[in-house]
Amino acid sequence: MCDSCGCHNHGHEADKDAEKRVVEVHESLLAANNRQADENRRHMEAMGAVAINMISSPGSGKTTLLEHTVAALGGSLRMGVIEGDIETERDAERIRKKGVPVVQITTGGACHLDAPLVHKGLHGLEHQAMEAGLKGFDLIFIENVGNLVCPATFYLGEHQRIVLVSVPEGSDKPAKYPFTFKGAHTFVITKTDLLPHFDFSMEEVRKEALEINPELRILEVSAVTGQGMDDWIDYLKGLVTVE
Amino acid sequence: MCDSCGCHNHGHEADKDAEKRVVEVHESLLAANNRQADENRRHMEAMGAVAINMISSPGSGKTTLLEHTVAALGGSLRMGVIEGDIETERDAERIRKKGVPVVQITTGGACHLDAPLVHKGLHGLEHQAMEAGLKGFDLIFIENVGNLVCPATFYLGEHQRIVLVSVPEGSDKPAKYPFTFKGAHTFVITKTDLLPHFDFSMEEVRKEALEINPELRILEVSAVTGQGMDDWIDYLKGLVTVE
Repeated sequence: MCDSCGCHNHGHEADKDAEKRVVEVHESLLAANNRQADENRRHMEAMGAVAINMISSPGSGKTTLLEHTVAALGGSLRMGVIEGDIETERDAERIRKKGVPVVQITTGGACHLDAPLVHKGLHGLEHQAMEAGLKGFDLIFIENVGNLVCPATFYLGEHQRIVLVSVPEGSDKPAKYPFTFKGAHTFVITKTDLLPHFDFSMEEVRKEALEINPELRILEVSAVTGQGMDDWIDYLKGLVTVE
Repeated sequence: MCDSCGCHNHGHEADKDAEKRVVEVHESLLAANNRQADENRRHMEAMGAVAINMISSPGSGKTTLLEHTVAALGGSLRMGVIEGDIETERDAERIRKKGVPVVQITTGGACHLDAPLVHKGLHGLEHQAMEAGLKGFDLIFIENVGNLVCPATFYLGEHQRIVLVSVPEGSDKPAKYPFTFKGAHTFVITKTDLLPHFDFSMEEVRKEALEINPELRILEVSAVTGQGMDDWIDYLKGLVTVE
């Protein structure tokens, strides 16, 4: 019973019980996810690979950045891509045209990838590598479902977690989605060629992101003009050398 | 035990049990949400209002469209706004400057609004209306958390559900997020002034959206140049007159 509006039967008490059960079950599912993620990590290390989990809103330019990355690094590093989407094979088709092994995973409604789905993706990559005569991978990119919130909760076994924000989305995103930035190693600001058309403050976005996560590495890129792509490529090469 | 990679203890069986329990508990929570949403709807109708639930990715221009809508309609309709965000009061501050009652709801991590949160927001709006000497509302806008996936599952009591996609996000979004478009009444394509800078196909986006939901009304707007704003305003006026 809600005193202020007088409306009955909100079921608030029932909600609380159900919410408590949801929390318990989610914790148990999350623990199972994390065990699988640890397994994925060992699995990818056995393949010789460093893995990168890419998280952003829909349309931030993850696939476009990957297309240009494959073009720039294809000669020197062995790459594989796991594409996560709710529906469609389109992103995988775009990457496949660039000539690297790619597996599309559709979640069928879920707003994020989880470790068991990535595990399936890894077997798909291995199968393609075998057919192509590749003995392993240097870099595995996991492009998560377009969503700035849910993927942040699910560790997939990655060595590096990257959050991307494009200039058209606005410079207020770190403050509005702090949890996602807290859990990331690297923050990539994309579509910087569009800066003249938007009221986007590079100073604000950097300051607020670093307040949330002082360890965050920040890169600015435009896949279209190539601006900042050298720094991005150096960063990726550094991961493979160091780890 | 996973035969193909030989790795043990994935906990797949435990996962299945937990997943089944999650589904059951979610169904019970969703039923409670829907009961509260029906209550919200009656509540808003008692205030004389038609309610609109606005769903999009972060940075699609929901708040900017609202700012311009309030400026255009402020003289003729009584409006109230409920702002949903994970963190920060920024969107509410932007709307407040336009001089209409606005309540900010922060979900503290959750990726969507639910009906109980909107119920709290309604009481906040009523309180502000009383202080301002308003006797009710014609239109209540509920700006959901920036997320193209999760909000689609939660009915809030709205009369119209609007999904927004901005030109920079790309014209492939309806096919990639079909569930969100299936449940919407209206699809607003925003930031159309940027069409010359992007490879965005208006034909593709319209065709694919209508394949998913043939009843969908589609509007194209640029809040910045004002292009299409007349159609948007006429649509809103029509809702108030008809319902």
